Amino acid sequence: MTAKVQTACIIGTGLIGGSLALALKQAGFCQRVIGAGRTEATLQKAVELGVIDHYEMDYSVAVKNADIVVVAVPLSAMKNVFEQIAPALSATAVVTDAGSAKQSVIKDAELALAKNFKRFVAGHPISGTEKSGVTAAFVDLYKNRKVILTPTEQADADAVKLVTEMWQAAGAEVESMSAGHHDMVLAGTSHLPHILAFGLVDCLNNLEEVDEVFRFAAGGFRDFTRIASSDPVMWRDICLSNREDILCMMEKYQQQLQTIHQALQDSDGEALINIFARAKQARDQFNNE
Amino acid sequence: MTAKVQTACIIGTGLIGGSLALALKQAGFCQRVIGAGRTEATLQKAVELGVIDHYEMDYSVAVKNADIVVVAVPLSAMKNVFEQIAPALSATAVVTDAGSAKQSVIKDAELALAKNFKRFVAGHPISGTEKSGVTAAFVDLYKNRKVILTPTEQADADAVKLVTEMWQAAGAEVESMSAGHHDMVLAGTSHLPHILAFGLVDCLNNLEEVDEVFRFAAGGFRDFTRIASSDPVMWRDICLSNREDILCMMEKYQQQLQTIHQALQDSDGEALINIFARAKQARDQFNNE
Repeated sequence: MTAKVQTACIIGTGLIGGSLALALKQAGFCQRVIGAGRTEATLQKAVELGVIDHYEMDYSVAVKNADIVVVAVPLSAMKNVFEQIAPALSATAVVTDAGSAKQSVIKDAELALAKNFKRFVAGHPISGTEKSGVTAAFVDLYKNRKVILTPTEQADADAVKLVTEMWQAAGAEVESMSAGHHDMVLAGTSHLPHILAFGLVDCLNNLEEVDEVFRFAAGGFRDFTRIASSDPVMWRDICLSNREDILCMMEKYQQQLQTIHQALQDSDGEALINIFARAKQARDQFNNE
Repeated sequence: MTAKVQTACIIGTGLIGGSLALALKQAGFCQRVIGAGRTEATLQKAVELGVIDHYEMDYSVAVKNADIVVVAVPLSAMKNVFEQIAPALSATAVVTDAGSAKQSVIKDAELALAKNFKRFVAGHPISGTEKSGVTAAFVDLYKNRKVILTPTEQADADAVKLVTEMWQAAGAEVESMSAGHHDMVLAGTSHLPHILAFGLVDCLNNLEEVDEVFRFAAGGFRDFTRIASSDPVMWRDICLSNREDILCMMEKYQQQLQTIHQALQDSDGEALINIFARAKQARDQFNNE
């Protein structure tokens, strides 16, 4: 492919930013990828691994000639990064992010980017693993995965188009929805499950028989709790950023558990089998899609 | 290996019983495997697939000349099967089971097997998948997996030895503990996670946005909810059979969720990160074992 743009700048070269850099380079989407981040050793490692072409520690220098800037940092760092890059962005530079909650990022971007806000297109790749860091990055992370864009009404159409093309170049399927809808859906499919897995492992870890408990855990438990190996800081940020939707989902779930608890207390086998059978049907259907 | 016994009888030739039959035949543990069960078509299929050598519909005929009888039926069917086989067992026949809860099975066996109860050794292979049925059976299901035996004090030593050797022949590592301890540990590592997964899928399935929710689910969700595809009848039985331990574990977990809910409501990032970090550390350690 002929390069769409000259320079892409990726701020935060961890699993998400690093994998995107690799994919964009492989696809020839841009002529060069500049990386930026807080930790010089990570950026050096990223250059060594061929993830980025060049790095800058100063964000305003990094974005100076960038046609597109991808901010792939923890949600709690977004605002600060936007503030640092705002004065240095060219008038045409497009800015996007890869955060797991979208309303909070849009609010941060609106405040910090000011006149450049119309060039901002919030995005969220529905991918990632329980691993993190540039050494975990791989070129196919986004292949056939969904990316949700949640552009605001103010967003320039050409900016939305460029961000769409960028993710498509990385192999992803791009869809659009409102930020509010995104945050509610992801609270259910991603944020709540992570909380439940962290909660279960911590709960079992508090038992006296903790060694036994983990020693006799089988494959089901391994799969179920894999996401509890995710980065605690990232997940604290997601919880705080999408707090209201997650609280709402948690409350629905707590009610569901109370229903199951009651059925079990009443030895109500029919109620249990109804819940389990509905769940199995929904999960089997999901599996076949 | 020289066959340890002449005839093994497996009642219930689904994933668990069928895979054991295949493994015992491959290891040459017995000279023949007789299958028994409720559904003739399943037994015919088991013979066709080479899982068993021969089948009987009448349990008392099936166990008549058996040296070892493995009852691999749902927990709610155990008592009835024990009652049917009791009058036909030889004085030396060893009986074992593969149920996921042990105290309830031992109670059923004690009542139904009467004088043969000293030849009964309760067992639980820590394996299985979310699939079920004889067509899902495979010879390596127990290879390097743990099997927990919970023999009572009355159990004959040679009976415990034979059941141990049987599972070892199938490739498993055999460990012993009390039935009470088994039921508590499994309530945490297996029974509670299944309830949580069934509960989550049913909860999301009740949302108005259900299609969206499943459409934007990623790999983490897929792993997390895989066990929600398990057999609802089997899991109703497990819940009712290990009711008290599961209720106790559920209550600890519900308290844990309430703690997380409160931390989120208070936007208490430190409390969240502490829980998530403890969980990650425990899960990473488990992963490295």
